Amino acid sequence: MSMDDQTKIPQATAKRLPLYYRFINNLHSQGKTRVSSKELSEAVKVDSATIRRDFSYFGALGKKGYGYNVNYLLSFFRKTLDQDAFTKVVLVGVGNLGTAFLQYNFMKNNNTKIEMAFDTSPEKVGKEVGGVPVYHIDELEQKIGSDISIAILTVPAQVAQPITDRVVTAGIQGILNFTPARITVPNHIRVHHIDLSIELQSFAYFLKHYPLQDEEGE
Amino acid sequence: MSMDDQTKIPQATAKRLPLYYRFINNLHSQGKTRVSSKELSEAVKVDSATIRRDFSYFGALGKKGYGYNVNYLLSFFRKTLDQDAFTKVVLVGVGNLGTAFLQYNFMKNNNTKIEMAFDTSPEKVGKEVGGVPVYHIDELEQKIGSDISIAILTVPAQVAQPITDRVVTAGIQGILNFTPARITVPNHIRVHHIDLSIELQSFAYFLKHYPLQDEEGE
Repeated sequence: MSMDDQTKIPQATAKRLPLYYRFINNLHSQGKTRVSSKELSEAVKVDSATIRRDFSYFGALGKKGYGYNVNYLLSFFRKTLDQDAFTKVVLVGVGNLGTAFLQYNFMKNNNTKIEMAFDTSPEKVGKEVGGVPVYHIDELEQKIGSDISIAILTVPAQVAQPITDRVVTAGIQGILNFTPARITVPNHIRVHHIDLSIELQSFAYFLKHYPLQDEEGE
Repeated sequence: MSMDDQTKIPQATAKRLPLYYRFINNLHSQGKTRVSSKELSEAVKVDSATIRRDFSYFGALGKKGYGYNVNYLLSFFRKTLDQDAFTKVVLVGVGNLGTAFLQYNFMKNNNTKIEMAFDTSPEKVGKEVGGVPVYHIDELEQKIGSDISIAILTVPAQVAQPITDRVVTAGIQGILNFTPARITVPNHIRVHHIDLSIELQSFAYFLKHYPLQDEEGE
């Protein structure tokens, strides 16, 4: 399967790749050499039929009574997720949520790396959080090089749009927006919005109106 | 439209309800009485065709050259989202992410409320964060009453499963899991997993392999 073919993987499948990768990586660390689709299913909470369909897109063929080869899967996922080619990330806003992200970052070995963070607080600027240097927001355009592709926004809602405009001008290609504000960007910029308050409200709504016993067949 | 009919709203539509609600609520606060589907579309970043289809499920009929009536929409969304009936929530783990959630909670006027939080740190137990009292984790079973339906997990990954078991035994119906750990629950418990690291990895993967110009027709 060539890299060109990989771009044909359905988005829903692609979204589960990092999840599969992490679990297979753990198995490999534990010295396991094979895994069944049932074990996989229980570990990653995705049903076995979906796992088998997903894995068929990767060209991974499970054998009856044997399962999947951990080494094969690991090297396939590594290649697919470009584990050797870091995506460089900046984070803007070192409040509680920003700090959580930076500390999380430090513990992980994956294909993304938060290279630097920005804030305005004199208590944070010039320090490191989770091993990541924090610069003053005034230095944003100067520090963001062409190798940085993603900005994580964990700033207060009222400055989300001006900060967005600045990171876009600085050459960022994608924005992971964790503020409650909806932001406007040029067409070529990808935005993913995760609003903690809306996640909680939606979850509460689903819990009330879509009891689990009604969900069969989905 | 009766409450029974509302449970027939497609899940994708239901998921956008809190988003629509917040925007309409803002318009109402500003004294606006009507809104076009184009304005709505630009504000919530959902295409107009989807908005019109969603609103038709709510029984909301936009008029050509007038748009939608803000007061009608607001009262409809309030009723639908049960704005008057709080869903009570607890949060376990008052680290950076937990603190971000608690402070967020305090600023919002919505249909969910974090009633209490739990931690083990002597610096946090007995205090309030974002107006929410923090109790010691040992008091979890004693404090969680039958009126609490959701637990937000912002604990370290290694204690996610034992804490899950305890909140399930305490009668929680849904868990919003913000830890990197996949948790196991009985069938009747709803779990929504948001892993910040996986969100970032997936976003980086999409940015590389699914350039925006390839996304037409989705």
